[in-house]
Amino acid sequence: MLRKVREYIWEEKLLEPGKKVLLGVSGGPDSMALLHIMHKLTTEMDLGLAVLHLNHGLRPEAAAEEEFVREHCRNWGIDFYSRQADIRALALQEKKTLEEAGRDCRYRYFFEQLEELQADYIATAHHQDDQAETVLLHLLRGSGLKGLRGIMPRKGQLLRPLLALSKAEIIHYLDENQIPYCLDQSNNDLKFLRNRIRCELIPYLQKAYNPRIMESLNQLAGIARDENDYLEKQLHFSWDKLLLWQEPGVIVLDKKALGEEHPALQKRLILEALARLRGESGWELKDVQRILRLLDQSGSSKYIQLKQGLRVSSVYQELHFTNRPLREGSFCYPISVPGRLSIPETGESYIIELGQPVTFQPGLSSCLDYDKLKQPLVLRSRQPGDRFQPSGMKGSKKVKDYFIDIKLPLEQRDRVPLLTSGETVYAIVGYRVSRLAEVDAESCRILIIRKENT
Amino acid sequence: MLRKVREYIWEEKLLEPGKKVLLGVSGGPDSMALLHIMHKLTTEMDLGLAVLHLNHGLRPEAAAEEEFVREHCRNWGIDFYSRQADIRALALQEKKTLEEAGRDCRYRYFFEQLEELQADYIATAHHQDDQAETVLLHLLRGSGLKGLRGIMPRKGQLLRPLLALSKAEIIHYLDENQIPYCLDQSNNDLKFLRNRIRCELIPYLQKAYNPRIMESLNQLAGIARDENDYLEKQLHFSWDKLLLWQEPGVIVLDKKALGEEHPALQKRLILEALARLRGESGWELKDVQRILRLLDQSGSSKYIQLKQGLRVSSVYQELHFTNRPLREGSFCYPISVPGRLSIPETGESYIIELGQPVTFQPGLSSCLDYDKLKQPLVLRSRQPGDRFQPSGMKGSKKVKDYFIDIKLPLEQRDRVPLLTSGETVYAIVGYRVSRLAEVDAESCRILIIRKENT
Repeated sequence: MLRKVREYIWEEKLLEPGKKVLLGVSGGPDSMALLHIMHKLTTEMDLGLAVLHLNHGLRPEAAAEEEFVREHCRNWGIDFYSRQADIRALALQEKKTLEEAGRDCRYRYFFEQLEELQADYIATAHHQDDQAETVLLHLLRGSGLKGLRGIMPRKGQLLRPLLALSKAEIIHYLDENQIPYCLDQSNNDLKFLRNRIRCELIPYLQKAYNPRIMESLNQLAGIARDENDYLEKQLHFSWDKLLLWQEPGVIVLDKKALGEEHPALQKRLILEALARLRGESGWELKDVQRILRLLDQSGSSKYIQLKQGLRVSSVYQELHFTNRPLREGSFCYPISVPGRLSIPETGESYIIELGQPVTFQPGLSSCLDYDKLKQPLVLRSRQPGDRFQPSGMKGSKKVKDYFIDIKLPLEQRDRVPLLTSGETVYAIVGYRVSRLAEVDAESCRILIIRKENT
Repeated sequence: MLRKVREYIWEEKLLEPGKKVLLGVSGGPDSMALLHIMHKLTTEMDLGLAVLHLNHGLRPEAAAEEEFVREHCRNWGIDFYSRQADIRALALQEKKTLEEAGRDCRYRYFFEQLEELQADYIATAHHQDDQAETVLLHLLRGSGLKGLRGIMPRKGQLLRPLLALSKAEIIHYLDENQIPYCLDQSNNDLKFLRNRIRCELIPYLQKAYNPRIMESLNQLAGIARDENDYLEKQLHFSWDKLLLWQEPGVIVLDKKALGEEHPALQKRLILEALARLRGESGWELKDVQRILRLLDQSGSSKYIQLKQGLRVSSVYQELHFTNRPLREGSFCYPISVPGRLSIPETGESYIIELGQPVTFQPGLSSCLDYDKLKQPLVLRSRQPGDRFQPSGMKGSKKVKDYFIDIKLPLEQRDRVPLLTSGETVYAIVGYRVSRLAEVDAESCRILIIRKENT
């Protein structure tokens, strides 16, 4: 058993010599086995150990269990830390199930201690039976490759060295070494989905379909972990090629490059964009499929409104993901020179080209010294706090105040595109150019932005 | 419903206009729906249709069912073909279950008809409930990503257009269009694993865990199909880079290049080598892991003996997969110049280099004109039928006869390496060089192969 865990630690590269590891020990069979096995590995792996125990205060035996673990650590000469929590109150307060509140509180405590004790890792006692349950749980809820990975042997500073062992092996180890442990009856409470999987579904599957189902599910988890990792690496490699523009609330991808990727990567890339704007969870395959259909559509702009206020629009060669509210009509598009930009939010289009300065017509066009501009360039609507340095003036001015000065009607102000790069405003297109971008005697390349006749 | 199938055919690119499609129709609800839906799509998709029916002869209703489908086709003006089979006898004869024998016989008939009728495709009536069952079946038996794909919408010339629909949707379609169908009671026979999954496991999972489990499993199958396809494409891309040598019974991979691949691809590449030599099925993760461990071992040769007589050995920078029986001690290794080759089968090593001709010592070395040799070069043991053209002689001679002439003991003959390229034998190393490779006055680069002192 010891050999299996040692090999697993080595194969999964979980631990290096000289590290300090905190063990989460409830006093149950799994964590008592973890404690004993890790204690035996201490010398050969040159580890520093300490034990963490969160007293959930849910069951009458809680105090006795804490004392049991403390006593055990004292005998073995291992540092022991514990905290008392009122999980029932927390669950009510944070609107979680007891199970969720307990887990969240436990990990919060573990990671606080990780920092306070300046330790390197936390190890928990998850094993192969837990792994099989987790894989099934994800399968039943609906999952892709990611969910099938189940419990990770290593997730940041969190380690699960006992994933090398089955529950039966752990019990055998405890018996053989006469290690005492506490039994938590709430693990058999069938109102928890996970317990139902453990106590009902798995035994049924073992009996009626495959006695080695645990092994199969663990193997699947391993394959899924490997292959998902590979796909994520490929995803990030492609992401860097596809991403044209990113700023808070906006992601712009290269439509053609996305279209050239393999369908499997296309879907992952789209999910990545959605996740960066609105988190990983809650997206369905059908959301991704709707977005994919945008790829085939050419010509003028198309939109999709998704949940959580997220919009995706196809704008010529680009796919724009944004979670900025539509009611404000704000927009933000990278430009290409020469090019043509259609702004769906205002219904107006702009021609962008290098050429001879054109006669100034208010509201219609702007000419700038192209060589004075920093890339990348963006046409966007004004934002609170925008300032610029109007040509022919000293100092800077709020864009808002400029609009007030020229008496532009309020409802038109959000429709006027600003030419910007980062925080710098180069032009209020059709109205005023910044001193920083002014055409002068030495200008070589003149950038002209003009509104298309509609 | 019709729209769903039409969109699915379009999305999965199942059919092009003008094709001739054979429908497998048993007369049950699924295949009757297939018949009606495909018939409705005939005109708009410009399809040619015909119906195939295999009469299993297992149940008393078999003849009536055949007549039912025939009659239906006559009314609709669709060509009908049928064949009578004795599945029970076939199952006995081919040592299969009734289920397997029926399926195999059915597909055999379908593909024979495909050729005979010069049709383009066969379509069967598999739907989303079948898909969910298949995914679960593979999961329960133990599966990687490949098994989770379940039923493929298209597999060569075999199409499954109804994978767009659930069983409930099919039944609804039949009712709505008042389409009659036959019911096969053997689909409820719980001695078939698949029927147990359909009638017991899925209803239990729907009730106790997730009412939308069918949908989840179908979604998983779609993701698995996509991502597996991507991984296979990447695999083949890497395979071409890794493969140093392949001939019947032997595959040689570049160890260093394999070691540089992502672990997920390493495993798939090893499985690919195993599959090419001994078929896809039967390999376990632990076989792959044993082979992977060879990658970390440097220096002299290491072996692994796998099932089915397959051996993998690590020979310097190469990984050799072979299913040639070990008892003959036959071997076959590509050489590099300069290089050193250790032949585990004989325990001897050879130095291969370009240099000055060395004094001929029987059994120890051979000198050849390197520029006369075709690449790639291989050192291998003799094979039945080997011939060569000994230097200083006209015509060719059997290698076997040469050994007899020089009175080399029988047990030594399989240990003498031949330098070969394809079918050409250039040298019996240490004994005789071929006329084709003889060193002469014009030779520039001399290849020397000599046995290392041991």
